[in-house]
Amino acid sequence: MRLLSQMFGKDLVKVAQNAFLCGTMEKLELYILGCGSALPTTRHFSTSQVINVRDKLFMIDCGEGAQLQFRKARLKFSRLNHIFISHLHGDHCFGLWGLISTLNLLGRTADLHIYSPHGLEKLLLPTLAFFNRQMTYKVLFHEFETKEPMLIYEDRSLTVTTIPLQHRIPCCGFLFAEKPRPNHIIREMVDFYEVPLYEMNRIKNGADYVTSEGQTIPNSVLTRPAEPPRRFAYCSDTVYLPDLAAQLAGVDLLFHEATFAADNLARAKETFHTTAAQAAELARAAGAKKLLIGHFSARYEDESILLEEATRIFPETLLAKEMLCVSI
Amino acid sequence: MRLLSQMFGKDLVKVAQNAFLCGTMEKLELYILGCGSALPTTRHFSTSQVINVRDKLFMIDCGEGAQLQFRKARLKFSRLNHIFISHLHGDHCFGLWGLISTLNLLGRTADLHIYSPHGLEKLLLPTLAFFNRQMTYKVLFHEFETKEPMLIYEDRSLTVTTIPLQHRIPCCGFLFAEKPRPNHIIREMVDFYEVPLYEMNRIKNGADYVTSEGQTIPNSVLTRPAEPPRRFAYCSDTVYLPDLAAQLAGVDLLFHEATFAADNLARAKETFHTTAAQAAELARAAGAKKLLIGHFSARYEDESILLEEATRIFPETLLAKEMLCVSI
Repeated sequence: MRLLSQMFGKDLVKVAQNAFLCGTMEKLELYILGCGSALPTTRHFSTSQVINVRDKLFMIDCGEGAQLQFRKARLKFSRLNHIFISHLHGDHCFGLWGLISTLNLLGRTADLHIYSPHGLEKLLLPTLAFFNRQMTYKVLFHEFETKEPMLIYEDRSLTVTTIPLQHRIPCCGFLFAEKPRPNHIIREMVDFYEVPLYEMNRIKNGADYVTSEGQTIPNSVLTRPAEPPRRFAYCSDTVYLPDLAAQLAGVDLLFHEATFAADNLARAKETFHTTAAQAAELARAAGAKKLLIGHFSARYEDESILLEEATRIFPETLLAKEMLCVSI
Repeated sequence: MRLLSQMFGKDLVKVAQNAFLCGTMEKLELYILGCGSALPTTRHFSTSQVINVRDKLFMIDCGEGAQLQFRKARLKFSRLNHIFISHLHGDHCFGLWGLISTLNLLGRTADLHIYSPHGLEKLLLPTLAFFNRQMTYKVLFHEFETKEPMLIYEDRSLTVTTIPLQHRIPCCGFLFAEKPRPNHIIREMVDFYEVPLYEMNRIKNGADYVTSEGQTIPNSVLTRPAEPPRRFAYCSDTVYLPDLAAQLAGVDLLFHEATFAADNLARAKETFHTTAAQAAELARAAGAKKLLIGHFSARYEDESILLEEATRIFPETLLAKEMLCVSI
């Protein structure tokens, strides 16, 4: 049996060990590009967010100016391959026209995937064809039903599931969920038992180790559990739906629209929006770890009234603002 | 014969005299909402400008984010009735979708007139119909040919004529020209000759005055000439067209694109754009009073290179920037 240090030089071992043994949390960050509602103000851009999952960028909604804010946040277009549109109101998708054209001007070649309720492709295609005579890349539309939660995206480490909402038109939120990750190797223990490099993946995935002498070392001695997978939920636009608590149970971060304060409850219902108090009630019922509220009505020059209202019910509430980056 | 003060009370006379006699320049201001080119940067919005003619607002081009910048400039949507689109490239018109929707949300009732080369109505209508199920106002499209100068707008005090440009697609600039205004009454002289109020309009328009004693007072004694009518020309996007000097002769302000510096002349020609030096040459040849350059390529982090290049040829050059307001 050879140790890592026998197989590789000393420095290379360090690199390999770091890759295998590193137990730090991987990047999961939410950027707010815009958190206003339908009417533009001098304070807010229309709705758009970007979630950075280990340097893959996923855009959620794409209001007018999203591409400008994307640049301002120093995010990289090349890392953006998936855009999720909650519903076909202009303040959630008018930024697509410009963003898609810009990516074309930049000579992008990778496919761009757009997920939305039905109707977007038919609307966008004629305009795209007119304004981008020659596309350097493909835009692939994935249109979904909005009645039931649906798995609409999956890769090695992440799933995205729709969250059916209730708005004036078909609308869904999105639940971003990390997949469970392999256990972390305890470096001192694998060194002690002289575990060879080629056994590491099996051990990370739960296998015990049998030494060359035939002794079985239980996995629990060699590893510690991975961090629990994190989840982020995006809910906008919608009336207050208390039943969402089940699907959102225990999310690490809940972004929920809070278009109005509680004294505008009637207006919220009428326009199929939520109050800050209701967003906080939902976060509490769901046992969310943090609540981020946004999609503010233009009437609130000072949004601290919304924050105070929510915080009284759910203390771990944050107020969205442009260029805010929240680590999940 | 009665004097003004005999016909009205003393205070009313002052108001009436001010209305008749005021000789100050009326408002003619240009606001830069965006002066970037096709690719967005953190420094610039896409192209859009607003010209304020005695509190009537005319928008020229409407790139993404124009409505946000319009708000930021503290301009009033209710004063905007006419939008002029130079050509159908996205960075000059992608802001229309959001702007039109916002005006609808605000419950606008006045018609909105949009002037553009052919094709815009067909492109916009399906999207507008989808995103604005019920329109509270009418959008009226006025599409023009781009080969010859055409008078496309006229009111009591202003005309707008197209300036045929040469770009990759049909494109026109716009010449905003005040109509000649009546002469200014010289207050001391009309007081001296006891000219009655009802004669004032005739005199402002050039008539002599005959006193009740039959004495003819020449108009030149009673009035001084009005300020010469002012003209503003907008030229973007285009290759360098020296022949424009004739149509632009003597303009008070020329906005001209200067996408590139002279060392990128080949690139400018290839993409049908102009260099700062060429814009300055045109301003000089036209005898413009001032030149404002914009539509900067994203490659220039520091645009002073463009300003210096233009200033060497035409000293009265200004660099456009967002929220700049130029009095014409």
